Amino acid sequence: MSSEKADIALIGLAVMGQNLILNMNDHGFVVCAYNRTTEKVDKFLKNEAKGTKVIGAHSLEEMVAKLKKPRRVMMLVKAGQAVDDFIDKLVPLLESGDIIIDGGNSEYADSRRRCAALKEKEILFVGSGVSGGEEGARYGPSLMPGGAPEAWPHIKEIFQGIAAKVNEEPCCDWVGEDGAGHFVKMVHNGIEYGDMQLICEAYQLMKDALELSHDDMSEVLAEWNKGELDSFLIEITSNILKYKDTDGEPLITKIQDAAGQKGTGKWTAISALEYGIPVTLIGESVFARCLSSLKDERVEASKVLQGPSNATYQGDKKEFTENIRKALYASKIVSYAQGFMLLREAAKVFDWNLNYGGIALMWRGGCIIRSVFLGNIKTAFDKNPKLSNLLLDEFFRDAIQDCQESWRHVIATAVNLGIPTPAFSTALAFYDGFRSERLPANLIQAQRDYFGAHTYELLSEPGKFIHTNWTGHGGNVSSTTYNA
Amino acid sequence: MSSEKADIALIGLAVMGQNLILNMNDHGFVVCAYNRTTEKVDKFLKNEAKGTKVIGAHSLEEMVAKLKKPRRVMMLVKAGQAVDDFIDKLVPLLESGDIIIDGGNSEYADSRRRCAALKEKEILFVGSGVSGGEEGARYGPSLMPGGAPEAWPHIKEIFQGIAAKVNEEPCCDWVGEDGAGHFVKMVHNGIEYGDMQLICEAYQLMKDALELSHDDMSEVLAEWNKGELDSFLIEITSNILKYKDTDGEPLITKIQDAAGQKGTGKWTAISALEYGIPVTLIGESVFARCLSSLKDERVEASKVLQGPSNATYQGDKKEFTENIRKALYASKIVSYAQGFMLLREAAKVFDWNLNYGGIALMWRGGCIIRSVFLGNIKTAFDKNPKLSNLLLDEFFRDAIQDCQESWRHVIATAVNLGIPTPAFSTALAFYDGFRSERLPANLIQAQRDYFGAHTYELLSEPGKFIHTNWTGHGGNVSSTTYNA
Repeated sequence: MSSEKADIALIGLAVMGQNLILNMNDHGFVVCAYNRTTEKVDKFLKNEAKGTKVIGAHSLEEMVAKLKKPRRVMMLVKAGQAVDDFIDKLVPLLESGDIIIDGGNSEYADSRRRCAALKEKEILFVGSGVSGGEEGARYGPSLMPGGAPEAWPHIKEIFQGIAAKVNEEPCCDWVGEDGAGHFVKMVHNGIEYGDMQLICEAYQLMKDALELSHDDMSEVLAEWNKGELDSFLIEITSNILKYKDTDGEPLITKIQDAAGQKGTGKWTAISALEYGIPVTLIGESVFARCLSSLKDERVEASKVLQGPSNATYQGDKKEFTENIRKALYASKIVSYAQGFMLLREAAKVFDWNLNYGGIALMWRGGCIIRSVFLGNIKTAFDKNPKLSNLLLDEFFRDAIQDCQESWRHVIATAVNLGIPTPAFSTALAFYDGFRSERLPANLIQAQRDYFGAHTYELLSEPGKFIHTNWTGHGGNVSSTTYNA
Repeated sequence: MSSEKADIALIGLAVMGQNLILNMNDHGFVVCAYNRTTEKVDKFLKNEAKGTKVIGAHSLEEMVAKLKKPRRVMMLVKAGQAVDDFIDKLVPLLESGDIIIDGGNSEYADSRRRCAALKEKEILFVGSGVSGGEEGARYGPSLMPGGAPEAWPHIKEIFQGIAAKVNEEPCCDWVGEDGAGHFVKMVHNGIEYGDMQLICEAYQLMKDALELSHDDMSEVLAEWNKGELDSFLIEITSNILKYKDTDGEPLITKIQDAAGQKGTGKWTAISALEYGIPVTLIGESVFARCLSSLKDERVEASKVLQGPSNATYQGDKKEFTENIRKALYASKIVSYAQGFMLLREAAKVFDWNLNYGGIALMWRGGCIIRSVFLGNIKTAFDKNPKLSNLLLDEFFRDAIQDCQESWRHVIATAVNLGIPTPAFSTALAFYDGFRSERLPANLIQAQRDYFGAHTYELLSEPGKFIHTNWTGHGGNVSSTTYNA
């Protein structure tokens, strides 16, 4: 056995794990690789890791023995039971102050539970979001570590070393306590769903309302990618739109229009409902994927249900294309504002100290939603770390103001042409609702008091709840039984 | 101890329980009343139940001894642990074939669990939705029983006897297996959220875009209540709008515009996300309540964020009022179609045999969403019990077709005036998406394959999933690691 000591161990040698190891090696860290099926360790050392400083272990005992103290053990295994199983096996081998990092796609509630359970054993747990796919893992992912704060000083150098950099700043910072890292990763994925849906709506408008060719649309997006919308997703969409099949046709036109999902967008929307935060754009984006996947029902419905007679835009195409860009940009601002509202509420619920500017910076590079836009968000929080809502920041306020007319024009046009824009529409409805001092929810309260004696609050006497006998019959008591 | 035998026992003497007992008594059934705090039993017998055939019990043993066989025990206690506690106490006192009915607001997953656990003990469990509040319980609720089908013949007479009647048909029928009754009740409540939000949007448009007085709006709704929209909620809203405070002002204008919620609308939206059914209108309605309750943030935002310069409608008010009615009606059709889609999916997931026409009839009277409209839904399912989607029924297809132009006009107008109509908008976006043979989700699939090698399906080769090397570099293998 070599006397060499590794800086960190990594469990799980699927592509993501392998790439993270090679990335760590590139940055001068000695990594000890382990995998449950140990042949994978030998194979990795002989192939991908050949000529590196990576060392291997064939048992958890050997792995732990090869680590500097405090020991740092990172897992990249399937979320769920496998994580708990490895933790159970590791704990007896570790000592007080050692660190276990879960870099998988775990649910934040599981990370909260693990962090608390390991704290009792004096092991420091870190649940870290890792985004950017295989390429990100290899050359610079976005990393979102949260958990036991005492762990951070011991992993900071490695994590910030291997993370993506934007203007030399690492896309990795400490997120917050217990499950905060995985929560932030979940919201990242939800926002990714939203960004993708917004681009789809712009695509459908250009394709159906303006009847642009796919090459033209590719050019439009390449142009957009030079400005406010400069982002990975706009860039790849431009590439996708111009990609030709062997017969010269755009490949995109041959792809089934039924979207898959793996759940994290859904989790974000469910969390939003649970914590009572109107993250409507992600919600509509998840539902849009659900609707898309009901392909057979849609085909049947398309033969029966009619739309407007006219489905193409009659005005200036170039001008309308610019309107679409502005509608997308304004909607995107709303989506991120909603996402940060959810983060803020979770921080309140779980008593996390979240660094919102840091989160924007973590997403600024390395991950799927990376964009110039996230730099603007970082700037907003730098200017005012206590900013209560992104929409109230001057930059975003003015940006929406500038887009507003176009945004409304695009949605009204889509509505009249029969082209669905659920995400554009919900973003605008949110904006108009959010800037309303008065909403019609007073009527909901009156209705609930009418049929269920739920009581309501008077504007003039906040905190005092009263019941009105609206019909003149029935009792004058408030109910606790009706449940709506 | 009396030798009299009771038809059914009822545990839990809060107002709902008391009223159900008196309702059962009115219909000739002998009820044995029990409450954990037994003084309540004596008080009830001496007061509300004086002169009735209701008998009391001071222990569960006594209660069970007073019941005809198979014994029927209905609980109206707080959902959650209390239900499990009573079940645990009852089981040793009951014998094979006896029936336990939970009439509380339990979650359907709990009812599923209880039904299965009691089946092993040969006890028949029924989880029943009960809607209509205190008044409904007393004079005719909507009842939605589900669980062990063998129980139904033994409770049918009582349940259908006390239920609300519409054209002499009881608003109660067997819903389906295990948790089906509580699931249907949950969806009922979600739909109730949607109906209320739709009325709120119509209200805000009339108030803000048309600047109608509250008396005028009350008259408009009274008029609507004579036609397609004839329903309890429209009726009470008309009453609410004209209700004056002691100073002669409409009381509604003095009520805080922050809506409360007790959770069942939220559960419906969460279930929709879990089962992948786009129940967007209920989702938006729940989020609209969430946004309304962020009152302080809205007040702050209203000072900073601008809308369009013009916020009132310039055209014919009477005509636009009729447009609003049609927008509400079309949106309502979409909402119910979505609700029934969720029921259909749940039936598939849990292997329930749901009677959709029967469900419409159960909601037709007695409950908060009772309406003429539900009679139309019943008719649609009577005509075609295998109807896959309400929107495909001729009656509703034509109704939407008739409303469509108005619907689009109202939303486009609201968008341009800056008045939020999230539920109207999402209903239309759903309609336009549902009737689309092609949606832009092909782009989502291409993006996911581009950044995560998720693979996609070709339209021409259903079932075959392929990966494209979009960038020309990187491997040609599909990934199983990236999780988005």
